[in-house]
Amino acid sequence: MTAPVLIATVAELRRALEPLRKDGVALVPTMGALHDGHLALVAAARERTRHVAVSIFVNPTQFAPHEDFSSYPRGLEADATKLAAARTTLIFAPPAQEMYPDGFATTVSVKGPATGLESDFRPHFFDGVATIVAKLLIAAAPDYVLFGEKDYQQLLVVKRLVRDLALPVEIIAVPIAREADGLAMSSRNAYLSQAERKVAGQLNLVLKDVVAALQRGADVVQAQSAGVAALKQAGFESVDYVALRDAESLAPVSGLEKPVRLLAAARIGKIRLIDNFPI
Amino acid sequence: MTAPVLIATVAELRRALEPLRKDGVALVPTMGALHDGHLALVAAARERTRHVAVSIFVNPTQFAPHEDFSSYPRGLEADATKLAAARTTLIFAPPAQEMYPDGFATTVSVKGPATGLESDFRPHFFDGVATIVAKLLIAAAPDYVLFGEKDYQQLLVVKRLVRDLALPVEIIAVPIAREADGLAMSSRNAYLSQAERKVAGQLNLVLKDVVAALQRGADVVQAQSAGVAALKQAGFESVDYVALRDAESLAPVSGLEKPVRLLAAARIGKIRLIDNFPI
Repeated sequence: MTAPVLIATVAELRRALEPLRKDGVALVPTMGALHDGHLALVAAARERTRHVAVSIFVNPTQFAPHEDFSSYPRGLEADATKLAAARTTLIFAPPAQEMYPDGFATTVSVKGPATGLESDFRPHFFDGVATIVAKLLIAAAPDYVLFGEKDYQQLLVVKRLVRDLALPVEIIAVPIAREADGLAMSSRNAYLSQAERKVAGQLNLVLKDVVAALQRGADVVQAQSAGVAALKQAGFESVDYVALRDAESLAPVSGLEKPVRLLAAARIGKIRLIDNFPI
Repeated sequence: MTAPVLIATVAELRRALEPLRKDGVALVPTMGALHDGHLALVAAARERTRHVAVSIFVNPTQFAPHEDFSSYPRGLEADATKLAAARTTLIFAPPAQEMYPDGFATTVSVKGPATGLESDFRPHFFDGVATIVAKLLIAAAPDYVLFGEKDYQQLLVVKRLVRDLALPVEIIAVPIAREADGLAMSSRNAYLSQAERKVAGQLNLVLKDVVAALQRGADVVQAQSAGVAALKQAGFESVDYVALRDAESLAPVSGLEKPVRLLAAARIGKIRLIDNFPI
């Protein structure tokens, strides 16, 4: 088990990746605080190519001022140990100044799949995501980039970004990694108290019930409302959305004719959880 | 004199450039209707590297609906003949659909040097420029990209874009090519009637007078106003701005302590001309 090389600048990253390119390079963008979901991304990357670069960067531009940027969990040493075990070639962990130097004035913005859902509650989120993902893809120029389906809308935004800018990379989507009770793995789960953790475990179960109801032919609007009510009953303080959407465009749908996705976001205290299921 | 290869898709462009990369590649982005100013960019490119790619794309997103997108001069055959004589390796002339496929939803936006001046009169212009330049640089991945100083604010916007996204390219700025009477070369000059052409020739002369006045110690605000008045007197119907700015940040300045640039935009009939001088 060799420790991955730790890299802090774009210039170093390019130098380090250059001799590895002939074997193919995959990039796994993360914000650190790694869990088994992230390691599943690394494993999926290693199925495709020999060298996996993992970026660890808590991207300030995708957090609103009132959100949890400063308290977002960080722990580079523990992350590096996990990545060594997962046979990661290198870790790119730049300081904020490297990605956003003084006078930084550029925003990459995606409409289309970024419209609605998360954007209704986090208006600057996808601009922040698109800008940093564009920067990471330009910096690492990987053959593959891996994203988890937990952030399903983000995955579609990144797909659109990559297509629109003709970035020469293949996007690999990896299914959601879940805890024993089905809770989608998330770095933010670490914030949950024991009581909140129990409530959190209901999110995926309620969504599964909504999926089952829809498959039995329930009305979409009624099934979504029933999902919201069930989440509140389960102990969520507020529910941002439970929404059935076209799986490709994220446009609202009224039935199951085309591939669809059920997406939800709900809050327990200060913690906001998201999850989704395909139908 | 070999005719340059004519290429219409990003995929073809990448394939064509791949074997040339070992010798270095330069990109000259243009909207066609080539004049000696463009050919000076090609010549400056050839001083640095063997292979020059010229893109010809009248970019719809940098024109407002009331602007001259549909009437912008086009003539691929004449352009190709000039580029063959200038020993261009390839011409990338994609259809609009190739650069903006259905569902295109991504905008690259630069603030900073894009604020004010041209943006006050063409609010969507630099978003269009930044988006297409980012796409072209991602597609061609050149070692050098060349821009003329005639579009001085655009040059600074592109510099900021390249720095902010850490695009691995060196920007080469080429001084303005001018006609015998000093008129900055521009594809839009082709629109000018004989009478308008005479008026147009006054723009550079008035700016030179303002530069001389500033160098003699004239007050900046007064010198700018005198420039506007002189342009109207010379026959320009309206003057968008005559402005002394910091040569790097484009921030307004009140004196000549740091490198500054005098920039102007003025209209004759439907034609809008720009020019600028260093001080």
